[in-house]
Amino acid sequence: MTESMDSSNQPSHEEAPPSSFLCRAAGLLTGDMHLCGEWVKRQSLVIQLLDWIFRGVAQVMFVNNPLSGLLITAGLFLQNPWWALNGLLGTLVSTVSAILLGQSREAISAGLYGYNGALVGILMAAFSAKGSWYWWLLLPNVFMSMLCPVVSSVLSSVASKWELPIFTLPFNILVCLHIAATGANHPYFPQVDIQQNNHLHHPNDSFQRLNISQILLSVPVGVGQVYGCDSPWTGGLILLALLLSSPTICFHAMLGSAAGMLSGFALAAPHRGIYSGLWGYNSALSCIAVGGVFYVITWETHVLALICALFCAYMTSASSKLMSVLALPACTWPFCLSTLIFLLISSEIPAICRLPLSVVSYPEENRRYQRQLKASEQAQHSQQSSSQEEAPFTLHSEKLMLRLQLLISSVKPTFIFSHVPLSAGVSVELVTVLTGAFFTLHYVTRDE
Amino acid sequence: MTESMDSSNQPSHEEAPPSSFLCRAAGLLTGDMHLCGEWVKRQSLVIQLLDWIFRGVAQVMFVNNPLSGLLITAGLFLQNPWWALNGLLGTLVSTVSAILLGQSREAISAGLYGYNGALVGILMAAFSAKGSWYWWLLLPNVFMSMLCPVVSSVLSSVASKWELPIFTLPFNILVCLHIAATGANHPYFPQVDIQQNNHLHHPNDSFQRLNISQILLSVPVGVGQVYGCDSPWTGGLILLALLLSSPTICFHAMLGSAAGMLSGFALAAPHRGIYSGLWGYNSALSCIAVGGVFYVITWETHVLALICALFCAYMTSASSKLMSVLALPACTWPFCLSTLIFLLISSEIPAICRLPLSVVSYPEENRRYQRQLKASEQAQHSQQSSSQEEAPFTLHSEKLMLRLQLLISSVKPTFIFSHVPLSAGVSVELVTVLTGAFFTLHYVTRDE
Amino acid sequence: MTESMDSSNQPSHEEAPPSSFLCRAAGLLTGDMHLCGEWVKRQSLVIQLLDWIFRGVAQVMFVNNPLSGLLITAGLFLQNPWWALNGLLGTLVSTVSAILLGQSREAISAGLYGYNGALVGILMAAFSAKGSWYWWLLLPNVFMSMLCPVVSSVLSSVASKWELPIFTLPFNILVCLHIAATGANHPYFPQVDIQQNNHLHHPNDSFQRLNISQILLSVPVGVGQVYGCDSPWTGGLILLALLLSSPTICFHAMLGSAAGMLSGFALAAPHRGIYSGLWGYNSALSCIAVGGVFYVITWETHVLALICALFCAYMTSASSKLMSVLALPACTWPFCLSTLIFLLISSEIPAICRLPLSVVSYPEENRRYQRQLKASEQAQHSQQSSSQEEAPFTLHSEKLMLRLQLLISSVKPTFIFSHVPLSAGVSVELVTVLTGAFFTLHYVTRDE
Repeated sequence: MTESMDSSNQPSHEEAPPSSFLCRAAGLLTGDMHLCGEWVKRQSLVIQLLDWIFRGVAQVMFVNNPLSGLLITAGLFLQNPWWALNGLLGTLVSTVSAILLGQSREAISAGLYGYNGALVGILMAAFSAKGSWYWWLLLPNVFMSMLCPVVSSVLSSVASKWELPIFTLPFNILVCLHIAATGANHPYFPQVDIQQNNHLHHPNDSFQRLNISQILLSVPVGVGQVYGCDSPWTGGLILLALLLSSPTICFHAMLGSAAGMLSGFALAAPHRGIYSGLWGYNSALSCIAVGGVFYVITWETHVLALICALFCAYMTSASSKLMSVLALPACTWPFCLSTLIFLLISSEIPAICRLPLSVVSYPEENRRYQRQLKASEQAQHSQQSSSQEEAPFTLHSEKLMLRLQLLISSVKPTFIFSHVPLSAGVSVELVTVLTGAFFTLHYVTRDE
Repeated sequence: MTESMDSSNQPSHEEAPPSSFLCRAAGLLTGDMHLCGEWVKRQSLVIQLLDWIFRGVAQVMFVNNPLSGLLITAGLFLQNPWWALNGLLGTLVSTVSAILLGQSREAISAGLYGYNGALVGILMAAFSAKGSWYWWLLLPNVFMSMLCPVVSSVLSSVASKWELPIFTLPFNILVCLHIAATGANHPYFPQVDIQQNNHLHHPNDSFQRLNISQILLSVPVGVGQVYGCDSPWTGGLILLALLLSSPTICFHAMLGSAAGMLSGFALAAPHRGIYSGLWGYNSALSCIAVGGVFYVITWETHVLALICALFCAYMTSASSKLMSVLALPACTWPFCLSTLIFLLISSEIPAICRLPLSVVSYPEENRRYQRQLKASEQAQHSQQSSSQEEAPFTLHSEKLMLRLQLLISSVKPTFIFSHVPLSAGVSVELVTVLTGAFFTLHYVTRDE
Repeated sequence: MTESMDSSNQPSHEEAPPSSFLCRAAGLLTGDMHLCGEWVKRQSLVIQLLDWIFRGVAQVMFVNNPLSGLLITAGLFLQNPWWALNGLLGTLVSTVSAILLGQSREAISAGLYGYNGALVGILMAAFSAKGSWYWWLLLPNVFMSMLCPVVSSVLSSVASKWELPIFTLPFNILVCLHIAATGANHPYFPQVDIQQNNHLHHPNDSFQRLNISQILLSVPVGVGQVYGCDSPWTGGLILLALLLSSPTICFHAMLGSAAGMLSGFALAAPHRGIYSGLWGYNSALSCIAVGGVFYVITWETHVLALICALFCAYMTSASSKLMSVLALPACTWPFCLSTLIFLLISSEIPAICRLPLSVVSYPEENRRYQRQLKASEQAQHSQQSSSQEEAPFTLHSEKLMLRLQLLISSVKPTFIFSHVPLSAGVSVELVTVLTGAFFTLHYVTRDE
């Protein structure tokens, strides 16, 4: 069974029928660019490193695609070249450090040892009060990026007991460590002063008019804030990068960002924070992780992803207030905590099916994997029930059917929604609209 | 062995001999009301839900008895109808949400998915600065109660690695999350302002005369504070509800509350806090949990329960000070942490015997279970040693003996102390009196 | 295999050839004083308790040697007799409490249930604002020391899932609990006021001249600060005690203390704190734990220990600032957290080899154990490959070789460096010097 599973799982690209050139090119560039990864393995170390770095940059959004990483890097340079440089340095150092520490080569080549370094680099530059091109900053940057694989390896050991991923926890831990160790008045490495915003509400702030265009812009800006960027262009480029690899991820990123933004309004947050995307990035990440990446995408997990995004926004509010007492930024702690909670749910509902960590890929691939797993299980089951007398024929016809299924699933381009997510998407949209309407109702009644 | 164990474990009520009517009625209404639970299973969903809700309300105090739940609900209405309403709503929502999430039906019917919702409802109402009948509060109340089964399921997954219960941790997490996310100046959901009481001691406060009647009242008030109620009538009703289900639980609740109150005096806490029961509720819960519910009650675990109550009071002082820095209430964190610590002790002493979570019931039942387990083990052992030649006769006589033992143990009414807890109770009283005398000595010498 | 391992592992002292008297005496008094421990087992309980207490005092520095404990106790009396008394009382109470709780007798006789009590006693006395000879302090001291085995047992249960030691976590938890529960204005047990040093940097402080003699003194003072002592004489006596048991531990203590001190300068800490050793003690402990005690000492783990010491210094800065917000001291939290992180690294490099907790001893013994394990594995391997025809002869010659190896390894005195640590030590020194030079460069350029 495992054998047939393996053969049907990954190499579906090769077995694709000779369809149009466009479709084949799309298959090469979308998803996790499996063929490109195979090609890179035979190249020199420099090209391999480049592949790993760009995959690392994209892995922040659960995307394992060097082209997406390249697009995101372009977005970062658009926002701030100094941040982008620090991010690339961090990715490089943490990847090399992982190699020196003897970590699994497969995880390294998927960029899983790079994304924390990328975030550490970018955010340490963003939180530094010395501004851009303060070259001494590279010193702690290199040290902290070097420690990323150490902390990653440790957290994996702990989290593997519950089959959990580690998300951006190493980044959160190390950046908070750096900010706490230096602080706002440090002579060498001063940090941006994080005001204690506990109990800080401007009553007249909520009376100001809502700016529709800024509300609409806050969705891509919220996605961009995952990398600490508040430029809508960067956010747009990142969304494009997500769309390239997996439309489901792109859709959930926008959905999560919108849900977080709405929760911000419902919780009466200052409008400036909402417009600059601070309420969106955690929810966007949560929504991506629950909606398709670690759970197989179904109608139920779609709703779960939306609830997780709302819960995450609640948690953003709580943790940003609590951590501001300690003069720390919230980083992506709310995302990590809320998503860990929603991944640990043990339910008896078959539609809420978590994938084993070793087979997790992009949502479309996850769905295909599960469908083939089910098909082979059913086939085996039917084979067992009608075993002895007509076995040869059944086996043959079954193989034929499987191959047919494979053909169909590989023809279907990755970059349009398959039927189930679409219907689920519509229903989720409805839920979002209803929730939004409810919040607005609440908002209006309060104003009177 | 397991077979005989099962048959001897739970259905002892049915096998009871035809004793007096009063005794049978007591058997029906005390303990976990097993027969009532069986009857409810055959009724409509509304009656089942009512049963689950009242069991949920009582499960806060480790009592699985709908009648106790009813009594406690009455006490809540006596204190504040708005709080009681919120509590019932929270219990309902979290129970329904657990059903929708596909959680274990057995745990739901024991009220294990309701008690956190009850506490969330009551305490969110109690901490709201908008006062009673602020209907918008139902919105976050429903959202937080809905998340209770999610957090419960997650914590169970984590805690099951060490065979630990999750206590009221979901309530603690969610209420603290809500309070941190809103805060004292929130325009919609403002919270009662929690003053930072770190380093806050009134030196003249300790010189004021001790009020004996208030000290005595603070014991039931401390028990009532588990539900956030400071009315002694509510506390009395709750104690009555505990007595109905299990006298051991009732005794330990009072003992723990008294120990916490004494520790409050020893730690020079402000008298007002002590009189309003804020030092009692955590210790009461700890004392119940360690003294009979999760450990089989013996002389040694009795002493352990008392030490745990004292340690819990220490922890109450520490956590209320630390959490007030973050403007958070202590909730029942001290109880959860101290009891988790005392449940994880790995000792080679046979008298400190922790029960597997799946068989945990009320203290008297736990004790009966363990006695029968031992008896059947010994019987098996003696059977094995005298096996071949006289096996048929031994088996027969053994069965007879077991049945006799069952008869005796079922005749003994549940609502008076069995011999061992009584003697232990007296000894523990002695320890308490000695500790109290010691503290008073300390108190007097300090005053000079 | 295990059989030959066991016989070759511990009793190497007995099998030592008749060498000079000095060497044999050194064998008796250095290391873990295995023979002394055997002798004590046949003595009365009072002598056993004395042995356990002094081993407990030394176990703070991972040394299982009563003579070292005696030396350290002398150092404590030199610093402050009241602190030393409290430390001894704490060790006694926690050891006796562990016996009453039915903990493993082997761990008790190695002093593993004493060291947390020792630290609790000393530090509770050191943090008390009432000064020396305030006898009421013995009350909470006894209570907290009594709870040490409880917390130790609990943490062991949790940490054993990952084969982790518990270090001084019970001490950290209990002392922080006591300080948080009482605070600076407590009428009975006031604590030394811990100033909130977040964002507290004196810009002119860094311009003051560096005091070379104080910098040199800060290394032993940093080692002494493990016990809360700032006298260089105490630090010197402690280093002597470490040298007696294991030169590797002594060297790493100095190395770690120096690395912590250098990091303090690099992070622009106030000079007074650096001179009083507050930056050294955590790094010293980390460096000992990683460099030889829990990992077998090799060139790679040597470097790992140095990185861990630097990381620990970073963590010291962060946690002392964060915890000062809550008016808590940093205790040895940074050491515990950073060392736990570095022990959980899962690497594929064979030179980074963690020992199972049950065989952990002092570094020289660990190294000998691993070498013999490897030798017996190789022997078995070669035996298997050349099995049938020449087995008798191979087995014989192999046994001879193993015995020879044993002789050589037992002759080599424990108190000089074996060849590999020496070369590694030199290389590490180089790294330290380079790091120091780098920091100084940084320091100088900033001054301009």
